[in-house]
Amino acid sequence: MSRNIQIVVIGDSREIAINNEIAYELGKYAGQKGWTIITGGKEGVMYSAGKGASEAGGLVVSVLPSTDIDEGHPFAAIKVATGIGWARNSSNVLSGDIIVAVGGGAGTLSEIAYAWTYKKPIVACKWAEGWSAKLAGQQVDSTRDDVIIEAKDMNELKAILDREVAMLKRA
Amino acid sequence: MSRNIQIVVIGDSREIAINNEIAYELGKYAGQKGWTIITGGKEGVMYSAGKGASEAGGLVVSVLPSTDIDEGHPFAAIKVATGIGWARNSSNVLSGDIIVAVGGGAGTLSEIAYAWTYKKPIVACKWAEGWSAKLAGQQVDSTRDDVIIEAKDMNELKAILDREVAMLKRA
Amino acid sequence: MSRNIQIVVIGDSREIAINNEIAYELGKYAGQKGWTIITGGKEGVMYSAGKGASEAGGLVVSVLPSTDIDEGHPFAAIKVATGIGWARNSSNVLSGDIIVAVGGGAGTLSEIAYAWTYKKPIVACKWAEGWSAKLAGQQVDSTRDDVIIEAKDMNELKAILDREVAMLKRA
Amino acid sequence: MSRNIQIVVIGDSREIAINNEIAYELGKYAGQKGWTIITGGKEGVMYSAGKGASEAGGLVVSVLPSTDIDEGHPFAAIKVATGIGWARNSSNVLSGDIIVAVGGGAGTLSEIAYAWTYKKPIVACKWAEGWSAKLAGQQVDSTRDDVIIEAKDMNELKAILDREVAMLKRA
Repeated sequence: MSRNIQIVVIGDSREIAINNEIAYELGKYAGQKGWTIITGGKEGVMYSAGKGASEAGGLVVSVLPSTDIDEGHPFAAIKVATGIGWARNSSNVLSGDIIVAVGGGAGTLSEIAYAWTYKKPIVACKWAEGWSAKLAGQQVDSTRDDVIIEAKDMNELKAILDREVAMLKRA
Repeated sequence: MSRNIQIVVIGDSREIAINNEIAYELGKYAGQKGWTIITGGKEGVMYSAGKGASEAGGLVVSVLPSTDIDEGHPFAAIKVATGIGWARNSSNVLSGDIIVAVGGGAGTLSEIAYAWTYKKPIVACKWAEGWSAKLAGQQVDSTRDDVIIEAKDMNELKAILDREVAMLKRA
Repeated sequence: MSRNIQIVVIGDSREIAINNEIAYELGKYAGQKGWTIITGGKEGVMYSAGKGASEAGGLVVSVLPSTDIDEGHPFAAIKVATGIGWARNSSNVLSGDIIVAVGGGAGTLSEIAYAWTYKKPIVACKWAEGWSAKLAGQQVDSTRDDVIIEAKDMNELKAILDREVAMLKRA
Repeated sequence: MSRNIQIVVIGDSREIAINNEIAYELGKYAGQKGWTIITGGKEGVMYSAGKGASEAGGLVVSVLPSTDIDEGHPFAAIKVATGIGWARNSSNVLSGDIIVAVGGGAGTLSEIAYAWTYKKPIVACKWAEGWSAKLAGQQVDSTRDDVIIEAKDMNELKAILDREVAMLKRA
């Protein structure tokens, strides 16, 4: 596999301080590790993850809902303007090796549900505000044997990502 | 408005007896009332809602994920083959005046989340098995003031639909 | 097959008199025959095909680009709001047993190209203004052995549709 | 604008020697210039453009139709798995600052049509085999004042791209 490790970060476009902080730290860590960060390209968690990754020299990709390639935050080197509205939530999580949920409202919930359907590893931040806290450690339905992986704090999140990326590289 | 009242029924493609029974009764009621039933066109709840509506003389529409216009159950007079995979979950709920959730796993959860984002009235069957039971009476996030409407049994479901349809006709 | 015969009519949303007249006559004929007319739901050819079919008692379906189920012309009994923008051109032609092109600009050209890819029978009105006139009798590429069927006038168009529908019913 | 210049290269997945050669040279030139190459990620022109760009040290992005992030050629550092089938042709061209058509069959024709609708600058290789040769210097419809820019050979193609990119940077 010559392509980059792709980490999709999902979460609120609303500004929630704790979620934005988590996303920023997560982005920085991914950038340091050389993992590409993919987000929906908008505000809040998406902005903060992009900022962190970009500051750490990482590659950031926005998968946008609109037809405007210049929509969204300024940290993405690459922007894909899907033009399919919120149906892009499906394309967004399909593009990840690993999905990390940082809080989140209805949009994020649709992405967690898609990620489950698509058999993606999902890591949910328990200490964020929103759906990632409610679904950490849970199953979405009985079609999978595993659960949404619970991360209790930033250190655990980093350790989980290290482990999951190592598994991808062995595969 | 010359078009029909469009009720989107969402729920499991897996065969769960209680959910299928609810969907069948719901389909029959919609057919008798002259409301069009729209579903994702597949098995389980989608099949049963289509069967009930069709037997009652109602119009049934399937909004399919695949490129095959002859996919899915045989009760639809009209089939739209979106060809966009599970992204069709977004198109499916966008096409409803009212969304009724009958149980449901991850796919249904994505549809409930979308319906919330799209400001659609959502009615959730509390006595079904799956996400409709868990989310009945709840908010998905704080961007709306209302809740997912809880229906405790078939009689209540019918009464809610009568009321919601009456509101649509006044609007 | 219990579903209706589905004829997708594609063409300009711009108002071009000759195209609108063809679409109206085509819609009327489909309505009389009991075939469902599916269009993109907007102005011009889509409006006129819907009007003709609706006046003849036919069922009309709009497959809309936007998220607004009340967008578009008032002749559709059923509206599917795909919410995927112009990507709906793909879903639109996928939903047809037969595609009829009446003139058309860039949007219609994308639909003819998709219909070719999807192995759909395509009938192109030679006497309309736009891409249907240019491509009637032509191949889009060498992946198919047949051509876009040329219809020289309304009588020939009706005869072609009768023949194509008869072939579908035998299949 | 912090993001990269994004050149979308469209053309046949079928192996046509002249088209593949053009795509390879084009990819190399883009890579040398530091422009990102975006393609649909499949064989033929897409493979060759990716190979050329990758060998020149350029960044390559695949916008895939399927749900499989590991589909397609191995030259992309970034893969977006849209999961929306050929509707991804719309997302693909939306993601470009400039669209370059190298030959092409029906799929490419749909992309040229979309690019025209989306008001993108389109450059068509006159000396390739397929739709780019037929439409070079033409209008798709009368909604734009300009034409599809004709490139007669590789030198002219490079000069056109230099000029178009310079215009983007001034904007």
